[in-house]
Amino acid sequence: METMETENIFANNPALLNAIQGRLGSLVGRPSGYIESLPPEVKRRIKALKNIQSEQLKYEKQYRAELAELEKKYLKIYEPLFEKRSSIVNGKVEPTDAECEREDSDMEQDAEEKPEVKKEEKPSADPVKGIPEFWLTCLKTNAVIAELITERDEEPLKALTDIQLQYLDDSDGFKLSFFFNENEYFTNKVLTKIYRLENTGDYGNIIDGKAEGCDINWNEGKNLTVTVETKKQRRKGTNQTRIIKRTIPAETFFSFFNPPVIPDNEALEMDEDEMQELDNKLEADYEVGEIIKDKIIPYAVDWFTGKALEFEEAEFDSDEYDGYDDEEEDDDDEDVDDTENAKGLNEPNAQAPECKQQ
Amino acid sequence: METMETENIFANNPALLNAIQGRLGSLVGRPSGYIESLPPEVKRRIKALKNIQSEQLKYEKQYRAELAELEKKYLKIYEPLFEKRSSIVNGKVEPTDAECEREDSDMEQDAEEKPEVKKEEKPSADPVKGIPEFWLTCLKTNAVIAELITERDEEPLKALTDIQLQYLDDSDGFKLSFFFNENEYFTNKVLTKIYRLENTGDYGNIIDGKAEGCDINWNEGKNLTVTVETKKQRRKGTNQTRIIKRTIPAETFFSFFNPPVIPDNEALEMDEDEMQELDNKLEADYEVGEIIKDKIIPYAVDWFTGKALEFEEAEFDSDEYDGYDDEEEDDDDEDVDDTENAKGLNEPNAQAPECKQQ
Repeated sequence: METMETENIFANNPALLNAIQGRLGSLVGRPSGYIESLPPEVKRRIKALKNIQSEQLKYEKQYRAELAELEKKYLKIYEPLFEKRSSIVNGKVEPTDAECEREDSDMEQDAEEKPEVKKEEKPSADPVKGIPEFWLTCLKTNAVIAELITERDEEPLKALTDIQLQYLDDSDGFKLSFFFNENEYFTNKVLTKIYRLENTGDYGNIIDGKAEGCDINWNEGKNLTVTVETKKQRRKGTNQTRIIKRTIPAETFFSFFNPPVIPDNEALEMDEDEMQELDNKLEADYEVGEIIKDKIIPYAVDWFTGKALEFEEAEFDSDEYDGYDDEEEDDDDEDVDDTENAKGLNEPNAQAPECKQQ
Repeated sequence: METMETENIFANNPALLNAIQGRLGSLVGRPSGYIESLPPEVKRRIKALKNIQSEQLKYEKQYRAELAELEKKYLKIYEPLFEKRSSIVNGKVEPTDAECEREDSDMEQDAEEKPEVKKEEKPSADPVKGIPEFWLTCLKTNAVIAELITERDEEPLKALTDIQLQYLDDSDGFKLSFFFNENEYFTNKVLTKIYRLENTGDYGNIIDGKAEGCDINWNEGKNLTVTVETKKQRRKGTNQTRIIKRTIPAETFFSFFNPPVIPDNEALEMDEDEMQELDNKLEADYEVGEIIKDKIIPYAVDWFTGKALEFEEAEFDSDEYDGYDDEEEDDDDEDVDDTENAKGLNEPNAQAPECKQQ
């Protein structure tokens, strides 16, 4: 299954691919010396195997199409449940007693909660609407996403009322929609991020074509993607000073809606470090999208309660295991390895016109 | 999708889970202080959300069952192609000229090969049968698996004629069968490895229940899982010496067929380091199984030619990117990060009765 998920960000950008293949040359060609040395009758057989592989990949495209149908079918089934969740979270609907009674006796992890269910707690004198800060809490519980959320981001993210997933009709890929209550930061009711995936049918790879963000209509002085730096400037000769304001790109979760862009061929002057940086940013951006799609949206309540962490930690991921010891000793360090990948995303865009790195 | 693949090795071993949760305590319970502090009407709504989640997980089980059906259906479609591949690899069938002519003009990566196809090469005077060392080459091209193959392993692995995948009928999971030509190392015609996966329906997790290996009937003196150490022992008082032979567990790819075992409750005296080591071994063992199932078997010819590496390197995997620079400077180091995970698998089993760590 992992292979089916394999992404190849280069394959639909031949220029970038070629440039990077220079770097990979020694690796990609590694066994080719052996192939070259084979007698012609063996080489001929390898060609036959390649043709068999091509035939197989045609069926794999069909498989992938059927898989996409299956995913769409189940998203349709989940959607009413997600809607109900959203109504409760946002205080539009109050669940009935029956809806609050746990029925699933097989969920042993929750056994210790059960006495609590019986306990009749009186509602507060001044009842709270819905479940406040639900989505902010979900996002902050995931170590990778938490790394992207600055203190300044928390206020607008409290206004986040829902995150919804849609599959694209016109191409492979998906769209994430972030719905917001009215807030003092921006006027958008919804912020969107689209990942267009393309299937090469080669080595079973899905290609991450592009990520498309959206413009955020920030209110005056509320733009979290920049900070304003004020500087005194002294006039030569005279003692007159003036205040210069300069906007500097700032770290914010909201740069998720301004994803990194794979440059056109003209930009091939990028050096290796720049390419590496772009790779990292593209990766990180896709990783965050995938976490929101596959983990946060379907299991939001488990993120809210923290239950999801239990399974996260037990995941087959060596990085997370490597991080264990450090986590125990220093809470601030937790999931360092896991989040490393996503850091590129939160770096201020060095190419912004107002930008001057200090 | 990633979530669907999430494995939880603990969840069906409550003893191990509990023991490990002690370690995780601070993390798993992290947001629970917040939940506790919520007013009762909000806690009530969270219970409703948990019930919605439970309902959703029931559908998710259905999804997973349909997905398994889909995978089985396509494996059936691929099987005749795999069989044809095997016949050519093992020299049972000679492909026709038509079968060797590349038809897929859209596969640009192979463009440079095309002139070669036209070139009529004369068969060798002493024609070679099939494609020698096909599967050994495939396995060695994958960085994770290459790490497990010792020099001593190469000889028996040259006798590997096919690797086949089956899905289990009686439970979730899959079986890998390694077919061997007659060889001087062991008498088995086929070595098998079974991964039984179990679905808890909790947080969408699939559980890696157990891996089952198989006994290898090693020929006398050919057992690659041990090395024999001879030691002189001097008798006290007299000057008599005798030769003591001791078998020591040895690193070998074939320990893949003797997977790590999650101990029963009695073994709860394991300390943290031992648990960590077991985790790593279980992870590594599963990772190798998954690579063989998802990467090696379906794309064997791409591994044989080295083409698969192109896509591997371009994968969205931060570890591999992190490794780039090192790879360039030192070929021996390549994919260090990638293989780290699998190393535990190849460590000699410290609990073998004859074992004495030096």
